[in-house]
Amino acid sequence: MTKDSSLHDLEAFAIELAKHSAQHTLVHFRGEMDVQNKSKGAWDPVTVADRAAETTIRQLIEDTFPTHGIIGEEFGEKSASSAYTWILDPIDGTRAFVAGLPTWATLIGLYREGVPVLGVMYQPFVDELFVGHSGKAYTDYRGHKRPLRVRSTDSLAQARAGTTSPHLYATDKDIFAHNAIRDRVQMLRYGGDAYFFAMVAAGQLDLALDPKLQIYDIAALIPIIEGAGGCVSGWDGSSPARGGDIIAAGSKQLLDEASVFLSGPV
Amino acid sequence: MTKDSSLHDLEAFAIELAKHSAQHTLVHFRGEMDVQNKSKGAWDPVTVADRAAETTIRQLIEDTFPTHGIIGEEFGEKSASSAYTWILDPIDGTRAFVAGLPTWATLIGLYREGVPVLGVMYQPFVDELFVGHSGKAYTDYRGHKRPLRVRSTDSLAQARAGTTSPHLYATDKDIFAHNAIRDRVQMLRYGGDAYFFAMVAAGQLDLALDPKLQIYDIAALIPIIEGAGGCVSGWDGSSPARGGDIIAAGSKQLLDEASVFLSGPV
Repeated sequence: MTKDSSLHDLEAFAIELAKHSAQHTLVHFRGEMDVQNKSKGAWDPVTVADRAAETTIRQLIEDTFPTHGIIGEEFGEKSASSAYTWILDPIDGTRAFVAGLPTWATLIGLYREGVPVLGVMYQPFVDELFVGHSGKAYTDYRGHKRPLRVRSTDSLAQARAGTTSPHLYATDKDIFAHNAIRDRVQMLRYGGDAYFFAMVAAGQLDLALDPKLQIYDIAALIPIIEGAGGCVSGWDGSSPARGGDIIAAGSKQLLDEASVFLSGPV
Repeated sequence: MTKDSSLHDLEAFAIELAKHSAQHTLVHFRGEMDVQNKSKGAWDPVTVADRAAETTIRQLIEDTFPTHGIIGEEFGEKSASSAYTWILDPIDGTRAFVAGLPTWATLIGLYREGVPVLGVMYQPFVDELFVGHSGKAYTDYRGHKRPLRVRSTDSLAQARAGTTSPHLYATDKDIFAHNAIRDRVQMLRYGGDAYFFAMVAAGQLDLALDPKLQIYDIAALIPIIEGAGGCVSGWDGSSPARGGDIIAAGSKQLLDEASVFLSGPV
């Protein structure tokens, strides 16, 4: 089995994980939920759905690939005794979920030796899937598959951008970055979470950025964006693979133009 | 035919209008679009889809109810020679549409003697419908119907709120209102357009507010929110039926608590 055919099999498995997750998330979406406070002080909802879904996904991985590592938002890290580690977030966008908006998503990423090689994003209420690996990416909306391809917009002035919320920009550097991008792009949209990154892959947005992402917020999205011809990076040019301050763009030129403003005032 | 049975028939017609509209909107969603600048200076996209959908809806109304009036975003007002006027916005949330997010919606409202009596909101990509009239409201998600009901949250500190974008708050009074609400609620979410108002009806949010709405932005939503047990008002307590600065809440108590901050600093 070549590396590529192996990834093809793992793709089918990752999609299966995302669809199993939906059995736990959908029953709680728009229904009565047990929203707990995960951290004191900040308001960070995490639902019964999130925990049940991650439990199910982890069990499926452990049953099928016992040597694979797992990093999940809810239940931490299980070390790998093979090259592969799964990176899980059953409900990315818990606030969208709580608000009843169909823009949260299930994120399933796979790393090989620390490198993102496969990503799946699934929104079960809409029933659409975004998949990327091996330099390709596609979307599957209720059985209708289409390749994902970034659009070519090479200047900030023409760019459509998305970020989750201006409230996430807390440091002086962050606020400078937010305002600089906001004042230069054609449109800056809020309220998207992972969807904004998927929409860069889909050629609908030119830029997606967020500060302080966790590894499970971005892992699945990297192969999707790169497979669609886009690029993902830390704001400082570092690898995005462990999370942090992250930007994705439809072109390297646009990413470079935006990055100038992400290190704070000169 | 009683007034209520007549509204029942008009409900079926309004849903038919929304579904006809989808034939024009969906083919352009996530595809290549002809985004025009409607007003110079501000960036206000309007798509071929929006115009084609409104043309189709208007024609269906004129063929079926030639005496009814029509107010639409794209093609203005046709006076009524009967008590009824339709208020149309085929794509509310054009920026969400352009960004590829499934949170735009088709809004179809019906006024009788200037009073909102029937409202339909339809999101064809998700395939979910919100309908309100005669003091009742329901949602229909791919054939699964459920009554809509606000949730009871009587204090701002526990409230989840939504507004389209902080960038819409332009005057001193607006900025004061935005900041006052943002600093007092449990969660303020951006990027929802009409969906936030529908989510008040669905009991997912407690508050939705936006400044400077047009009549077609809010008309359809009033019977949906009121039918679910919520209330809608101008920020100054005036009728919301002609648009303006609008707030919707799950309870009158919460609306009154929020309204204190909407008239600017004392």
